[in-house]
Amino acid sequence: MLRFRCLWLSSCSSLPFNQQFAPSPILSSLRSKMAAVSYSTQSSSSSSKKLLFRQLFEKESSTYTYLLADASHPDKPALLVDPVDRTVERDLSLVKDLGLKLVYAINTHVHADHVTGSGLIKTKVPGVKSIISKASKASADILVEAGDKIQFGDLYLEVRATPGHTVGCVTYVTGDGADQPQPRMAFTGDAVLIRGCGRTDFQGGSSQQLYESVHSQIFTLPEDTYIYPAHDYKGFTVSTVGEEMLYNPRLTKDEETFKSIMENLKLSYPKMIDVAVPANMVCGLQDVESKAA
Amino acid sequence: MLRFRCLWLSSCSSLPFNQQFAPSPILSSLRSKMAAVSYSTQSSSSSSKKLLFRQLFEKESSTYTYLLADASHPDKPALLVDPVDRTVERDLSLVKDLGLKLVYAINTHVHADHVTGSGLIKTKVPGVKSIISKASKASADILVEAGDKIQFGDLYLEVRATPGHTVGCVTYVTGDGADQPQPRMAFTGDAVLIRGCGRTDFQGGSSQQLYESVHSQIFTLPEDTYIYPAHDYKGFTVSTVGEEMLYNPRLTKDEETFKSIMENLKLSYPKMIDVAVPANMVCGLQDVESKAA
Repeated sequence: MLRFRCLWLSSCSSLPFNQQFAPSPILSSLRSKMAAVSYSTQSSSSSSKKLLFRQLFEKESSTYTYLLADASHPDKPALLVDPVDRTVERDLSLVKDLGLKLVYAINTHVHADHVTGSGLIKTKVPGVKSIISKASKASADILVEAGDKIQFGDLYLEVRATPGHTVGCVTYVTGDGADQPQPRMAFTGDAVLIRGCGRTDFQGGSSQQLYESVHSQIFTLPEDTYIYPAHDYKGFTVSTVGEEMLYNPRLTKDEETFKSIMENLKLSYPKMIDVAVPANMVCGLQDVESKAA
Repeated sequence: MLRFRCLWLSSCSSLPFNQQFAPSPILSSLRSKMAAVSYSTQSSSSSSKKLLFRQLFEKESSTYTYLLADASHPDKPALLVDPVDRTVERDLSLVKDLGLKLVYAINTHVHADHVTGSGLIKTKVPGVKSIISKASKASADILVEAGDKIQFGDLYLEVRATPGHTVGCVTYVTGDGADQPQPRMAFTGDAVLIRGCGRTDFQGGSSQQLYESVHSQIFTLPEDTYIYPAHDYKGFTVSTVGEEMLYNPRLTKDEETFKSIMENLKLSYPKMIDVAVPANMVCGLQDVESKAA
């Protein structure tokens, strides 16, 4: 049974960030239509609930950042999944252009290959709350656990514990039900990559745990669920649960073969880990403080 | 008035490429569900018509390739827009995994920064037809003009002439009407990039023509039409007509200002142009022949 602990968006006043934008009436009308560009929801009775979705790429670390917003909510509350420090300006510029109100900066885990943008975002957009899993032992404004719901407007993400790449990895999945976007979308971090998965040889990683996480928490989702990973190195942008269940060269194997594959990858020490992990344990804030100093 | 000349998918036998894949009944069932992961179409009466859509990225030239298929058609006919020679193996592997039948390899224009994958694809998947505009003066199996329809299953792309970056640039737009995917999607090549546009200083380029093309052929589409460009250098994956009408830093300007911007870009000579353009004038086949030699 999943335990649902809801994180509701508080009804707060406009952010300074949004106040900088004062569109003309014509632009407002256009912007209003524009913001409705989105995934449609399944049920006609809930067609007013719209997810605005954007996938963004950071080339140096091959990281995907995801922007999600409830475009039909008056506030257009939005969240960013796995923002990168280097691309914060780009992401906030897009948030502004789309007329959204950023409320959460969320991480799937403590990244070892780049510094999260959460801390920088918090300094630039007052009111934004950072989120990471309690199991990561990192600090953030909100620490989530399996079963928690992260609410933005009338939409939400469900938190699933998917340890294995790191001990604190979680997967965020869009809600189930007719009033939520269909097909569902899973932001898997490094637990499932497209035709791959994250390494399991540091930060409390465990190939056995990763295998169990993926098979119990991700491969049990509907087969048409989109998989949006934290990285891709070959230019793929999206996969599905069904596709990875058929074609993932590691995760389609039995558990023993999987463990053997993961234990013999012979990967080099990640070049960013000694900078990224300490910074990401405080949601990038250590990095921000050192830059500000 | 747009003139519609239809290019129908001929009912041909299974390709050797597809015959290599012989899934088990369970995999077949899963693959059948998987292939239906798609954009939904607007009308419930046409809900059986499904667009399967994938965006793919080639990192060196920052090129986007697009895979589209009619997943509800028995043959699952598919096409690739702007394939790159370096990523042909990846693209064909995905086509195979998704159980699609590739019928067209399409180019928006004669690229100057990479070699098209059309030629290589034709050597690997017999029956695939290459497509480019007649105005490009390049050779291909099918030469299209404004108003032509490229049919794949029950879906189609409409051809719009959008010269300016090169003399033969076209934009491919998904069909209009309740039986086609909504919102519409425009594959703009280099005519409109996200918050930018292609240069106009070679290959018959003209800033005046580009301005006219964009304003008459792209900015007249519904504002919620997705813009999928041939490139992005900042990690954006998609925009909309409405968004570019508001925020494109060049194309929101008046024509004279736009021309002045484009004529003063002072860009360096494209490093790939002397290799790419001659190869792309024959849809990459010159490149294939030299590789085979």
